[in-house]
Amino acid sequence: MHSVTPSHLEELIVALRCLPGVGPKSAQRMAYHLLQRDREGALRLAQALELATNNIQHCSKCNNFSEHEVCSLCASPKRDAGLLCVVEMPADLLMMEQTQCYRGLYYVLMGALSPLDGIGAKELHFDRLVRRVQEHPCEVIMATNFTVEGDATAHYLATLLRPENVKVSRIARGLPVGGELEHVDSGTLAQAVLERREVIS
Amino acid sequence: MHSVTPSHLEELIVALRCLPGVGPKSAQRMAYHLLQRDREGALRLAQALELATNNIQHCSKCNNFSEHEVCSLCASPKRDAGLLCVVEMPADLLMMEQTQCYRGLYYVLMGALSPLDGIGAKELHFDRLVRRVQEHPCEVIMATNFTVEGDATAHYLATLLRPENVKVSRIARGLPVGGELEHVDSGTLAQAVLERREVIS
Repeated sequence: MHSVTPSHLEELIVALRCLPGVGPKSAQRMAYHLLQRDREGALRLAQALELATNNIQHCSKCNNFSEHEVCSLCASPKRDAGLLCVVEMPADLLMMEQTQCYRGLYYVLMGALSPLDGIGAKELHFDRLVRRVQEHPCEVIMATNFTVEGDATAHYLATLLRPENVKVSRIARGLPVGGELEHVDSGTLAQAVLERREVIS
Repeated sequence: MHSVTPSHLEELIVALRCLPGVGPKSAQRMAYHLLQRDREGALRLAQALELATNNIQHCSKCNNFSEHEVCSLCASPKRDAGLLCVVEMPADLLMMEQTQCYRGLYYVLMGALSPLDGIGAKELHFDRLVRRVQEHPCEVIMATNFTVEGDATAHYLATLLRPENVKVSRIARGLPVGGELEHVDSGTLAQAVLERREVIS
């Protein structure tokens, strides 16, 4: 029965499964779609995969993806070197940049502590972050996610950084802008009460 | 803000969106995953895309994907040339083969009539199917999906084939209404083939 599927098609279906969240049925559907309706897109994707894989490394300063040894953000003289924001993923860095209120530097962990998935302090290169703070003392802002993993990562890093005697902060928890008390979960509301700030009028 | 994302990474994220069902967030997640955890898989996928795109054509007889002008199934002398099963997609053909009760030939439409998506008789090359039946008269079994599009396709094809004076049948509605061949168990599909009914048009 297998002989009725061309081997290059079979190989494409298998190869597509390296994408996260793509199972055998999705991979088959994608392969058919590309061959039937978008061969141009397939070739473009092939080239993009090769170029990205061969040209993208990690910035030696912030660990974000970069085409150069030091990324453009780390190389910029306009950024405030007294602030270091620690995020989990490059997408989080982009979100921070979109706020247009943060002008410091970043450190991208490329993940969060997750012992069950085999991701520990070593995999996330915490030592590189500590060394960086030792060399250039600055305030460290933990902007990891408010998940169990993100919280654990922030807490563990703060412990590691304690001997360096730098200020370590965590972005605030609370209601989102435009949020209504009626629709927020009780954990968030409890944190918002605990982290309440004085109104200066 | 855009300058913080390497251009090869941006291009990879854009290129990944040619895959069906992949939006901007999924594409980003896929790109990060490949660069961070599976560069080998990315290169393998790049090569598979290129090989498949450059080597896979349509079989001149059954229209299925093939690496040769005539696919191995059409070239096989063991198949019953008196039966021609019309399916929408290659996956449907594989499901038919899995029933192990059908030994005839196939015609793969690579889709179904869908006027809203701009897929008509011309896009599905109905003329090639009709010509094939004119040259080699045989019983035609409509095994398109039991969806609105699949039913319309079967009915339209039956009308086109009426002048040829061949028996045209439809696999039995043993499948649930609205069901797709790809997701049915082979026992039900085998039953549906056995109980096929002549289309009276």
